[in-house]
Amino acid sequence: MSRLQCLNLKLVIKQILTAGENKVQARLSANTRNFSKLSNWGTKKSATHVKIVNYHPETMADAQVEQILAPLREAVKKQGQVVRSMKESNAPDMEVKKAVGELKALKKQLDDKELALQPPSETFNRSKFADLMIRRFFYDQSFSIYGGIAGLYDFGPMGCALKSNILEQWKRFFILEEQMLEIDCSMLTPERVLETSGHVEKFADTMVKDKKTGECFRLDHLIKSRLETLIKDKKQTPEVKEECKDIIIKLDGMTTQQMSDIVNKFNMKSPTTGNDLSEPVDFNLMFATQIGPTGDQKGFLRPETAQGIFVNFKRLLEFNQGRLPFAAAQIGNAFRNEISPRSGLLRVREFTMAEIEHFCDPSDKSHSKFSDVESTVMRLYSACNQMDGQPPVDITIGQAVSKVKIIDYIRQIKYLIINTNIYCQGMVANQTLGYFMARIYMFMMKIGVNKEKLRFRQHMSNEMAHYAVDCWDAECLTSYGWVECIGCADRSAYDLTKHGEETKQRLVAERKLPAPKTIQVTELEMDKGLIGKTLRKDSKDFVEKLSKLSINGVKQLHEFIDNGKSDPTTGLTLCKIGDKEFQINKEMIPLKSYSKTIHVEEIVPNVIEPSFGIGRIIYTLLEHTFKIREKDEQRTYLSLPPLVAPLKCCVLPLLDNDKFTPLVSMLSKSLCLKGVSNKIDDSSGSVGRRYARTDEIAVPYCITVDFDSLVEPQSVTIRERDSMEQIRVPVADVVDLVYNLSQGNTIWNVAKAKYPIFESQQTNE
Amino acid sequence: MSRLQCLNLKLVIKQILTAGENKVQARLSANTRNFSKLSNWGTKKSATHVKIVNYHPETMADAQVEQILAPLREAVKKQGQVVRSMKESNAPDMEVKKAVGELKALKKQLDDKELALQPPSETFNRSKFADLMIRRFFYDQSFSIYGGIAGLYDFGPMGCALKSNILEQWKRFFILEEQMLEIDCSMLTPERVLETSGHVEKFADTMVKDKKTGECFRLDHLIKSRLETLIKDKKQTPEVKEECKDIIIKLDGMTTQQMSDIVNKFNMKSPTTGNDLSEPVDFNLMFATQIGPTGDQKGFLRPETAQGIFVNFKRLLEFNQGRLPFAAAQIGNAFRNEISPRSGLLRVREFTMAEIEHFCDPSDKSHSKFSDVESTVMRLYSACNQMDGQPPVDITIGQAVSKVKIIDYIRQIKYLIINTNIYCQGMVANQTLGYFMARIYMFMMKIGVNKEKLRFRQHMSNEMAHYAVDCWDAECLTSYGWVECIGCADRSAYDLTKHGEETKQRLVAERKLPAPKTIQVTELEMDKGLIGKTLRKDSKDFVEKLSKLSINGVKQLHEFIDNGKSDPTTGLTLCKIGDKEFQINKEMIPLKSYSKTIHVEEIVPNVIEPSFGIGRIIYTLLEHTFKIREKDEQRTYLSLPPLVAPLKCCVLPLLDNDKFTPLVSMLSKSLCLKGVSNKIDDSSGSVGRRYARTDEIAVPYCITVDFDSLVEPQSVTIRERDSMEQIRVPVADVVDLVYNLSQGNTIWNVAKAKYPIFESQQTNE
Repeated sequence: MSRLQCLNLKLVIKQILTAGENKVQARLSANTRNFSKLSNWGTKKSATHVKIVNYHPETMADAQVEQILAPLREAVKKQGQVVRSMKESNAPDMEVKKAVGELKALKKQLDDKELALQPPSETFNRSKFADLMIRRFFYDQSFSIYGGIAGLYDFGPMGCALKSNILEQWKRFFILEEQMLEIDCSMLTPERVLETSGHVEKFADTMVKDKKTGECFRLDHLIKSRLETLIKDKKQTPEVKEECKDIIIKLDGMTTQQMSDIVNKFNMKSPTTGNDLSEPVDFNLMFATQIGPTGDQKGFLRPETAQGIFVNFKRLLEFNQGRLPFAAAQIGNAFRNEISPRSGLLRVREFTMAEIEHFCDPSDKSHSKFSDVESTVMRLYSACNQMDGQPPVDITIGQAVSKVKIIDYIRQIKYLIINTNIYCQGMVANQTLGYFMARIYMFMMKIGVNKEKLRFRQHMSNEMAHYAVDCWDAECLTSYGWVECIGCADRSAYDLTKHGEETKQRLVAERKLPAPKTIQVTELEMDKGLIGKTLRKDSKDFVEKLSKLSINGVKQLHEFIDNGKSDPTTGLTLCKIGDKEFQINKEMIPLKSYSKTIHVEEIVPNVIEPSFGIGRIIYTLLEHTFKIREKDEQRTYLSLPPLVAPLKCCVLPLLDNDKFTPLVSMLSKSLCLKGVSNKIDDSSGSVGRRYARTDEIAVPYCITVDFDSLVEPQSVTIRERDSMEQIRVPVADVVDLVYNLSQGNTIWNVAKAKYPIFESQQTNE
Repeated sequence: MSRLQCLNLKLVIKQILTAGENKVQARLSANTRNFSKLSNWGTKKSATHVKIVNYHPETMADAQVEQILAPLREAVKKQGQVVRSMKESNAPDMEVKKAVGELKALKKQLDDKELALQPPSETFNRSKFADLMIRRFFYDQSFSIYGGIAGLYDFGPMGCALKSNILEQWKRFFILEEQMLEIDCSMLTPERVLETSGHVEKFADTMVKDKKTGECFRLDHLIKSRLETLIKDKKQTPEVKEECKDIIIKLDGMTTQQMSDIVNKFNMKSPTTGNDLSEPVDFNLMFATQIGPTGDQKGFLRPETAQGIFVNFKRLLEFNQGRLPFAAAQIGNAFRNEISPRSGLLRVREFTMAEIEHFCDPSDKSHSKFSDVESTVMRLYSACNQMDGQPPVDITIGQAVSKVKIIDYIRQIKYLIINTNIYCQGMVANQTLGYFMARIYMFMMKIGVNKEKLRFRQHMSNEMAHYAVDCWDAECLTSYGWVECIGCADRSAYDLTKHGEETKQRLVAERKLPAPKTIQVTELEMDKGLIGKTLRKDSKDFVEKLSKLSINGVKQLHEFIDNGKSDPTTGLTLCKIGDKEFQINKEMIPLKSYSKTIHVEEIVPNVIEPSFGIGRIIYTLLEHTFKIREKDEQRTYLSLPPLVAPLKCCVLPLLDNDKFTPLVSMLSKSLCLKGVSNKIDDSSGSVGRRYARTDEIAVPYCITVDFDSLVEPQSVTIRERDSMEQIRVPVADVVDLVYNLSQGNTIWNVAKAKYPIFESQQTNE
């Protein structure tokens, strides 16, 4: 099979070389605080075998592959001729039917072989996958007995356990290992907070309505879908088709007016009814509600978890004893009222996020643990390469962060076979950003994401918010194309600055100066005695209004008094402060200047934000680990790593026999005590059939209690899911072994070397 | 101190005997699907030392206690006389001030001693507690830099870690050990689902508005608070006071009209402005929103997580291969738009719940694991005892479930010293309910709830929903009185029946019949050929309408045709079906009867529902474990069990010295690898001061690296939080030891016996 592997490699190279042309490339933002419009993924919803990446028909034309397929093709062809001639000679119906049956069987053999020989990354059987997900209740549309609600999904027992395991690993990997401060904030958020963050004004998509039915469509989706139809339409001229293609490419950057013009130019109608469409309107994607009974406190469901961290910055800094850098994290749900949700778990209205905000000194974005990760090789797709039509490169994060020419390193890079003249001038903005990218990569590997289907794509300048310094999305390849699962952005001081301005709170940290500094300070020193004597009952109001003035405002007051007309008897001048006038003089509000030595200065920390879309990671992982058994297309399974598999183990009695019950239940209890999630499967059906059922829900290990288990020295069999291999293990060892296997403390091959292989039950499958 | 302990015990007995009179007893419903009105807790918000239970002044008058206090009292008295005579003799100011200072110091000594001698369960220093919670950011009001939103709280790093640990233990204790099916459903819920559950109609509180300002008040709170003021008012006659007391007692059961009459009778006004009040209106407690852009799909934020389980019942049963009983569980947030949230974490607008729905055969509510728990002794406060003014009893759950006289068991029960004539006629409705109550009790003990402050109170018949069979609340005693933390109810078949009726789905399970049964079946067998020929284009419509008829409906049609007038030429009769008339005869719609042997019957499962209010459990636990050091009132700490403590361990260098860094960081890393949450505290300050800081955040173990740690054989000290004892442990042992201590695999006393006690750093504290 080494020829096929080589072929596989060639495909990967091609895939990289052509990735720049990939039209269905996702531009999603789990981290959409930059409010970029979300583009469309592949839309062949009904497709059964979805092609992933670019499909290369020449693979099938390859000589060796063809050699294997040739006899099968020949057999199909022959049988086809048999059927044809039987029909021509009016053979009895029954006989024809039988021949057709044989033909079908042969064709299926050929199809299966073709599928088996095709590099596994090339096609994806989405209907089989969806069937497994729903049938074994990994997830399903919410409220499905009520007809379901678009964009809302429930995780069933297996999906929920998978999610829970991924989050547990996430907590260990980020919160525990990096000593982050995890917090848990309200989802209900008052309007003012989201006005400050910009969400009230800008977190919107443009939509049009069917004028008669009121049905809503996302404008960019509608245009794209209509133009794609035109491109496929044989009646259209090449000029029109070219124009359509051109518009689709430019669609993401268009203004509402430009899109509206296109709707008019092509006279677009409602795709479902053909009715006229309304003018485009902006639709805010946040769910609005009222907090409290009076109806005057508007709130929203948070569109992201990050704001909860920013508004708690002061307390968090205090908890960290005033020291920078530190990171806070939050796991929780966020909500977006998508206009037309689709693509299953990928675009939903309610979803779990895990967000990190790493606060650091803006003048020092180095990271103390960067050296631990600098040699990690990752696939980076820089903005520069995207614009030049160049492929991503595999490069160490150390190199990506450093500002040197990378030509010397190119030969070490696996897939990069052209463009030896690339320079890498600090491709990734700083060490901290690079550190988190590497950690994200390592985390994704740990939970089982396919390395070849993960890349980091840098935002191009038009995608980034104006305040962002640099932003990289971890994208995973799925049957819907490249999907953004994690955003990793350097957001500068934007969020803290905004909230600080709005609340008049000093959301700052102190930085020790390299040397003490002498500065000139001017302060207002109100003469409260004089103020009281002069203004009497107005004093309090005056002091309050004065406190809101800046030093410059007070200086202007002084100037006004110097230049204005004072009352000749009292010597006071009528001054307007805020919305009220007061009779005052300068003596009431003297300014005092003095010099002061300071040892620290205040800085607004910058923030590096890795933001994980947990639902998308789960979906990706399920797609990446979905497998079909080579010899039996009906048997599907999920090769999830034991660490995140929903259940670590099943305990099966070989037969429905009371003799097995005590040992089965003892083993299950002991596993529970060790914290190993497990299930007893004593349902009817052969053990092979039960193995197949456990494969479907990704159970990595099955312990089977058979007749040999009942005699001393007691032993059981352990079966591994991916290889379907079995070993025979003493009962005394089995719980610890499964615990260590499921925790990743040991691997199957080590266990296999230690215990005897067991084969006889294999035949049952 | 044994005398004091005995005294403590006496108090507990008194507390039990008087518990029936406890007026501030909480009637909260985390599980408020029975829509009972929530009554008020103690409201002394500003109180510093809050009395818990009934305060017994005689404690302080106790001879032994008085003996200890006497010299202190004498000293205070003496010094007071000194100060008085100095003032009389016009002594110099400075001297008087000094004497007053001494007096204050002596008084403080007396106060401290008094506090120290008072049984700890008797008073609670709520201001010190609140200070700790906010200062070390266990939790705080959400959006506090924006002024905060009532009823919304954020958990800071320590609160969040505590919550996370409690939920992890919950998952292990319930989901893993009981093999429950955990699911994770949407919070956004369409209106129809909540109409079916009854929430749209009935999940409301009655409120009145200030006619001028629009401020809203919960009507029952307003009445209670006004009447309490009247009771305290010296001008009121005893008759009025009696009437007020009587109303307060009856308030919970009153209708809106009755409450409205009271408002009018006592001429109640807005408590904040004195303005007139509006007529009472019902205010639905659910947060409403719109799902999707069209505005025609109304939704709510779920008020509980349970509905998500009910609507997924079919898939869950299927996942369990059709077998009963099984339990599903869900952890997640729910939302209630409280009219006037208060009491900190106890009454909030957004909160985390953990709910279990155990589905079982209505005719068999036994539990296979009941024998594992039947000897668990719990404090049960039956509806019967509540009505009779009797105290709760400590009783085994086995006895509470069984229908026997318990007189023989009374002598085994610790605190029950009167009422030897109690019978227990199936106090708890069934084994499954009893099993979960015992498991709830065990869980609460495991996470550290005070056993003496936990009781199970049965709902009285007027509190329960009509469909509920039995309902017990696990209540915890806090400074706000008894707070319902967990509800445990047998809800019969109510929820599945309702959703089944509304969706026309068969939300049922199959039960194997003891013996096959022959039943008579009648079916409609349409003659579609004849229908088509006769009705032609109307056929489809006819078949559709006919399908909606019941068998009885068809029988009525037959009768109508038999008795009606048929068209003499065609033989057809004009019949109205639905809203349309058709010319038909009986031959088109024959009924076929036959007998059939069935082996299973369909049943609607009953559901036992334990429902946990996680926020309330967290609050209770924090109150129960809040401690003040005996010798230093300024030093507060939390004696949380290691299993749930936010951080298991701190690693401290004795001094700020680079020599310690490698070992400190190695230990922290090794602990992380073992999954032991820990923190390095290398901040400035003496080690004693740093210990005090770790005590505040409930860190059970501190590892200190000192100079002895740097010489072979390397060793460090471990300090335990509650006892402040220290031991010296070899570096090679320390990580495993702290791991085992924090997991509850071993206890401090065992460790102390194994390693030498270390004392010298103690002096720093």
